[in-house]
Amino acid sequence: MKHRVLLTGPGGRIGPHILPTFHAQFDLKILDRRPIEGEPETIVADLSSIETLTAAMAGCDTVVHLAATSDEAPFVEELVPNNVVGLYNVFEAARAAGVKRVVFASTVQAVSYYPHGHTVQNTDLPRSVSLYGVTKAMGETMGRYYHDKHGLEFIAVRIGWFLDYEHEWLKEGRANAIWLSPRDAASFLARCVTAENIGYAIVHATSKTDFELLSLAPAREHLGWEPEDVVPAAP
Amino acid sequence: MKHRVLLTGPGGRIGPHILPTFHAQFDLKILDRRPIEGEPETIVADLSSIETLTAAMAGCDTVVHLAATSDEAPFVEELVPNNVVGLYNVFEAARAAGVKRVVFASTVQAVSYYPHGHTVQNTDLPRSVSLYGVTKAMGETMGRYYHDKHGLEFIAVRIGWFLDYEHEWLKEGRANAIWLSPRDAASFLARCVTAENIGYAIVHATSKTDFELLSLAPAREHLGWEPEDVVPAAP
Repeated sequence: MKHRVLLTGPGGRIGPHILPTFHAQFDLKILDRRPIEGEPETIVADLSSIETLTAAMAGCDTVVHLAATSDEAPFVEELVPNNVVGLYNVFEAARAAGVKRVVFASTVQAVSYYPHGHTVQNTDLPRSVSLYGVTKAMGETMGRYYHDKHGLEFIAVRIGWFLDYEHEWLKEGRANAIWLSPRDAASFLARCVTAENIGYAIVHATSKTDFELLSLAPAREHLGWEPEDVVPAAP
Repeated sequence: MKHRVLLTGPGGRIGPHILPTFHAQFDLKILDRRPIEGEPETIVADLSSIETLTAAMAGCDTVVHLAATSDEAPFVEELVPNNVVGLYNVFEAARAAGVKRVVFASTVQAVSYYPHGHTVQNTDLPRSVSLYGVTKAMGETMGRYYHDKHGLEFIAVRIGWFLDYEHEWLKEGRANAIWLSPRDAASFLARCVTAENIGYAIVHATSKTDFELLSLAPAREHLGWEPEDVVPAAP
């Protein structure tokens, strides 16, 4: 039987690249704050209402939660409502709707203040490079709480530097250690839905690289996942 | 020369027990959301205004930030405004006022979902027992960011179970592994002001106990601190 999945925020940067995989593999509902072209059944809502989120999750076993404010948005006006309160609302709705697993889009920015020679392990304390990263690290801790306290399965995916194949930064070698390709993003997030025997996990998602700035060991261990794409050699 | 210190939230549970020590050792300003008896110069303000906080910090080298919402207060209505936004405001004010060090009252609740036989190290990922604990763990990460990014000195003090000497729970042996006595709280927090050569530290604060549920090693290493009071034997 197909997993019944609610995907939040597929109108963002990553979403369009994973929607075909998710439609193919799962019985999919999607929620975004704006209508999405070609997705007439999108539930249009933000993250401000537990009731709306609970209704959207009805019948779902898994929530893949991409919706968030990214990068250097204002802390009080945007990061807190969406990444702190909005995430809390997602967890409370998941409890109310009987969802079994939440897959949470965290970020490399939660840990990218470690010096470049250090391969980050999923047991290292966060060292965030931005307030956005701070809110995502908090999401990992909140997920731990909802797992420990309420038995929710939780996977925090520290997403690498998502760039399309033709992006010039990739050709310039600026994303070597943390690039996540569209194809690898889709297979990774789908695996987070289907992987079994996970209670709580923090996993790093990047494509193949000569030097893992973020260790891929947790993804191998918890998800049995390997990247397919290889970071292009710098010129 | 005396350290010039702003102490926030001394009207709470712990504050009254540390005020005599802080008055004796430091050139002290205090800020609380309510007037405090016997402290006519209290700056009465909450944590909602960066400008007010910046003015209160003028001339201070250190902020000891106790003001917060504790325990199971409503997340959106109280924990977020005070412990998330309020803390951000404190950091931004500290930057604006040229404060050198922020001492932050974190809590044992940030890590107390570890099983009881495990001595928590300050390198362990948070496992919070409450949403209050989640906000405090986030504060530790936010402090790391302000240290890494802006050079602020930061000490997160995971305060144990603060009970007065005569509390019945103490006599019943219910606080054995995490009790922090009033005298030890005062000496610990004062040491956080005076200790030198600290960039970023997470330290645990408890009185002497047969079993350290929270390791005192970081307090010894960073602060050269030892507790004076011993947890009474259970009957």
